[in-house]
Amino acid sequence: MIRYKATISYDGTLFSGFQRQSHGRTVQEEIEKTLTKLNSGRLVQVHAAGRTDAGVHAYGQVIHFDLEQERELEKLRFALDTQTPDDINVVAIEIVSNDFHARYNKHSKTYEFLVDIGRPKNPMMRNYATPYPYPLDINRMTIAIKDLIGTHDFTGFTAAGTNVDNKVRTITRADLRYDPEKHFLIFTFSGNGFLYKQVRNMVGTLLKIGNNRIPADQIKIVLDSRDRQLAGPTAPGNGLYLKEIIYAD
Amino acid sequence: MIRYKATISYDGTLFSGFQRQSHGRTVQEEIEKTLTKLNSGRLVQVHAAGRTDAGVHAYGQVIHFDLEQERELEKLRFALDTQTPDDINVVAIEIVSNDFHARYNKHSKTYEFLVDIGRPKNPMMRNYATPYPYPLDINRMTIAIKDLIGTHDFTGFTAAGTNVDNKVRTITRADLRYDPEKHFLIFTFSGNGFLYKQVRNMVGTLLKIGNNRIPADQIKIVLDSRDRQLAGPTAPGNGLYLKEIIYAD
Repeated sequence: MIRYKATISYDGTLFSGFQRQSHGRTVQEEIEKTLTKLNSGRLVQVHAAGRTDAGVHAYGQVIHFDLEQERELEKLRFALDTQTPDDINVVAIEIVSNDFHARYNKHSKTYEFLVDIGRPKNPMMRNYATPYPYPLDINRMTIAIKDLIGTHDFTGFTAAGTNVDNKVRTITRADLRYDPEKHFLIFTFSGNGFLYKQVRNMVGTLLKIGNNRIPADQIKIVLDSRDRQLAGPTAPGNGLYLKEIIYAD
Repeated sequence: MIRYKATISYDGTLFSGFQRQSHGRTVQEEIEKTLTKLNSGRLVQVHAAGRTDAGVHAYGQVIHFDLEQERELEKLRFALDTQTPDDINVVAIEIVSNDFHARYNKHSKTYEFLVDIGRPKNPMMRNYATPYPYPLDINRMTIAIKDLIGTHDFTGFTAAGTNVDNKVRTITRADLRYDPEKHFLIFTFSGNGFLYKQVRNMVGTLLKIGNNRIPADQIKIVLDSRDRQLAGPTAPGNGLYLKEIIYAD
């Protein structure tokens, strides 16, 4: 048995998320279907570094799967890339040791979130950035976002009812920049793991701070209180990108 | 009767083109449906500066239509913008004289064509740029594209069977640039009118020149011979954008 690690990109627009489910088209299902075909009909199971929700995109999702034979890597990558649907691309593939696990091996993830603050709206970007047509104090957000950096209990930024016990995570990078050509705000977050809907809730809170509807130090208040009610709304999935995953070894 | 001129943008991906037809979703149909609703059910007909084919996008398409009453412009723009589907936006609206005609009033059009020459392919751009994964001599194309500028008979660059008698058109701008961040080649063409599939045929020819499969002066040969067989293939619609229309007065 040979274990393969692959880096994939996908357009989340027409997917009900990464993880296979009883209803709705998923990235996992499409890749498993193609791999099973390439494996002469013998079922292949795919494990991902992280699940992404409906509408969320990926440039650097990492998966692993097992095949009985050793394959020529570029041939396997090309077959998988061309035989999966158009909205999935297979960027890279390599052989890893049998104890590698895309999810459980230590890694850091980087997410980006795009907010379209331009007028008029760009119909070509409607699935690839979240429009925000209200005034924003970018300076206020630039200061506030720094409060996320470090090791914190992020309970206040996750969805209620999440069944993960330990909600302490470390964020190593949190910043935003403005792209004047596209009129996009680009948020970047890196860390050793993110809770369910954490990035979208952090962005929703930052936008509310930028719009002056909550205090500039509200992030500290949400972290300290662990109270989801004090954070902003969940930003839509269409602005979110799983950008890169880097494994410790 | 008041005549309105509107500038609209749309994502061509899910449209069978601009012009209403018996089968398939069209931009014209969606706008006429919304306008008719806003006009208490009385039919409103829309005329566009130019038709765009299936998959072709627009940032600056211009249309005109008539309503019995004078409406508050920003209110009308907002209603039309929000009540049309998400892949159509209404950028601007104004009142024009009753003899204005979006198609027949003298104007110049600018088209852009995006070619994605990056590897790996970007799934987010699959409907918004045409991938070209073969070697390209950009310098060779930069020189060749200049042969399109000026007044020429473009018969060799239009689809066979086009029922327009006069195929002489003037191109005032034809250039290309490389966006190193996105790995896009961006072609820009401006002129007083373009024949059916002319831009896509010019791009298809330029790519074949860039790929060294036809001589660098093939554009002159196609113009002189008026022979469609000597031009390159029609580039796909998904890379084409109707960028801007400027009226003479």
